[in-house]
Amino acid sequence: MKHFTIEVSDSQTAARCGILYTGHGPVRTPAFMPVGTRGCVKGILPGQLKQTGAEMMLANTYHLLLRPGVEVIESLGGLHRFSGWEGPILTDSGGYQVFSLSSLNRVDDDRVEFASHIDGSPVVLDACSATRIQNRLGADIIMCFDECTPYPCPLSRLEKAVERTVRWAQLCRQSHQNPRQLLFGIVQGGTDLTLRRQCAQALTAMDFDGYAIGGLSVGEGHDALVETTQFTAPLLPADRPRYLMGVGMPADIVAAVRAGVDLFDCVLPTRNGRNAFAFTDDGPIRLRNSQWTQDSGPIEEGCPCPACRTFSKAAIRHFFNVGEMLGPILATLHNLTYYHRLMNTIRKTIRDGTFEVWSRTFIEKHKKESQMEISETQERKECL
Amino acid sequence: MKHFTIEVSDSQTAARCGILYTGHGPVRTPAFMPVGTRGCVKGILPGQLKQTGAEMMLANTYHLLLRPGVEVIESLGGLHRFSGWEGPILTDSGGYQVFSLSSLNRVDDDRVEFASHIDGSPVVLDACSATRIQNRLGADIIMCFDECTPYPCPLSRLEKAVERTVRWAQLCRQSHQNPRQLLFGIVQGGTDLTLRRQCAQALTAMDFDGYAIGGLSVGEGHDALVETTQFTAPLLPADRPRYLMGVGMPADIVAAVRAGVDLFDCVLPTRNGRNAFAFTDDGPIRLRNSQWTQDSGPIEEGCPCPACRTFSKAAIRHFFNVGEMLGPILATLHNLTYYHRLMNTIRKTIRDGTFEVWSRTFIEKHKKESQMEISETQERKECL
Repeated sequence: MKHFTIEVSDSQTAARCGILYTGHGPVRTPAFMPVGTRGCVKGILPGQLKQTGAEMMLANTYHLLLRPGVEVIESLGGLHRFSGWEGPILTDSGGYQVFSLSSLNRVDDDRVEFASHIDGSPVVLDACSATRIQNRLGADIIMCFDECTPYPCPLSRLEKAVERTVRWAQLCRQSHQNPRQLLFGIVQGGTDLTLRRQCAQALTAMDFDGYAIGGLSVGEGHDALVETTQFTAPLLPADRPRYLMGVGMPADIVAAVRAGVDLFDCVLPTRNGRNAFAFTDDGPIRLRNSQWTQDSGPIEEGCPCPACRTFSKAAIRHFFNVGEMLGPILATLHNLTYYHRLMNTIRKTIRDGTFEVWSRTFIEKHKKESQMEISETQERKECL
Repeated sequence: MKHFTIEVSDSQTAARCGILYTGHGPVRTPAFMPVGTRGCVKGILPGQLKQTGAEMMLANTYHLLLRPGVEVIESLGGLHRFSGWEGPILTDSGGYQVFSLSSLNRVDDDRVEFASHIDGSPVVLDACSATRIQNRLGADIIMCFDECTPYPCPLSRLEKAVERTVRWAQLCRQSHQNPRQLLFGIVQGGTDLTLRRQCAQALTAMDFDGYAIGGLSVGEGHDALVETTQFTAPLLPADRPRYLMGVGMPADIVAAVRAGVDLFDCVLPTRNGRNAFAFTDDGPIRLRNSQWTQDSGPIEEGCPCPACRTFSKAAIRHFFNVGEMLGPILATLHNLTYYHRLMNTIRKTIRDGTFEVWSRTFIEKHKKESQMEISETQERKECL
């Protein structure tokens, strides 16, 4: 059975509406995956996550590898049973976190040695072990182990990273031993379009179940992000799902859908929510702001999330102000609902032929917010 | 309309099953009220609270007075709208927190001057202002302003506290200006039975809507708690609800129901939950314990709470271990469900005539746990 079908292709942009079939049910694309770093979205129960509109969750191999360990999750029957999330799950390969969170001891063409960011203990990951670990965690979609580069990055390092990423992708393909899982390749190359093409061509030849564009949303800004995505997406097979990793702000997502991307994940709705930053159609608001002290209205009129249905901005501001957990929880629920409603609007407008106009207007209105991502990204290392 | 009806009186003990009618619906008694200190039970949404079986919530006047302030809550339409909890709410008078949390500057027969535990700013409370504040917060049941004594306490101080508590009760009665609220008197007197009788008689003469036994569960231990309750409860009018404040461990509650108590509140299920301590029919378990590392079973077999229905002990232990909010949230949901199931069993066995035997067996089995409360109580000041 084909694991991805495109149901509607937009006639004016490269956007498409499809269904991604997984071992734990279908996902309507374009889709956004909330990040459940350590087996859950912070503070959110699986039932609540579903209510926000989420159909698929991402979990971080790096974090789960360190705690509670692969053995524990495997012995309990895998990630779905462990996390209580019955829908589809995608695990990343750990590459991004190894290169951004840990103290690297040694990187060579075969493997990465690093010190755990928790207790400094030494860990080694390579293409084979990262794949086997993901095989054992049991997510529905797993990712190739790749080398992530920062931004900006010297060309020589970008070249080396692409070379390793391609070599490792081949090894991941060979190591993959769980037929219930789809394996996606990851295109690297920073904002260098020549390297992106080279990497995309090499990976496409390996025939992966899907293809990700990695190494973006690391500080390059909205325009470079969009330009690189617009260039790279069409290089990937049209009949396979395309996944833009770690993206992003609402305008980034809409622009990437225009370029033909189907899947997204990002910590912004959840991490920003925990920091009292709420997304709305009229732009983001800061819930700690004293202007909400006596505001009896919801975060966003008409929003069906539990925060907006039950609480005034004044109450939510109070919760943040007194350090009450419910503040971060409510803002997270609202932001995830906002993101999933956005994806719903994207799918709906693609289907009814209004996506080109709608998306242009949306990007125009929200593009400025995307500039905020740069500074947010800079604190990513601490907050992840 | 009568606000309290007794439907079944146990023939072998003083226990009774009744219904307390409030402006926000009926409460089946004996009932347990979870503590929503600052307008919510920590980490728990109103819908989740209801699912645990809660019918009534308690909120702390002292905390709400300091933040966000009475004006804010009043301007937003009162505590129910602010907290999103549509069921009955009881507010305490602030007395307990004033005497336990704040730095007291001056206490005299008329009023208490203290420094806020948040910013040290000076606050004055007296019987009249504590009542008017509660009138404005808008809970369904409000409490008289009383002087709480620690344990142990010299007789002269106990006497003074009872004298003030009685005088203030009269003033609260006169100041009370919200006819939609029931006003309860509070009996003080520590473990001195003569003072308890004196206080109970004086308050009974004032004809309150209900009567509380205060100043217990402050370190006196299970036996003294039960003895004082057994002595005091029958001194209070049989046709009014009796409320044992701040109690307690499961065996304390069951013993107090035997003595004729109808209402309880306590931070134990919630605070202990946040500290990874879970109540079960086989006694409490500590969820951080390494013995659960690979345990695929729920906290308690057959428990209908979201923690037990969805997560293994191994997953919950992991959440506590990595500092994930979901740990405290899940343990809180479990403990509240445990408490409300306990109250349900109490009501059921009173109705079917098996309460005497059931309660004796229960207390025998769980009494030892109540000894743990003493040390828990000692850290109350920090944790509240």
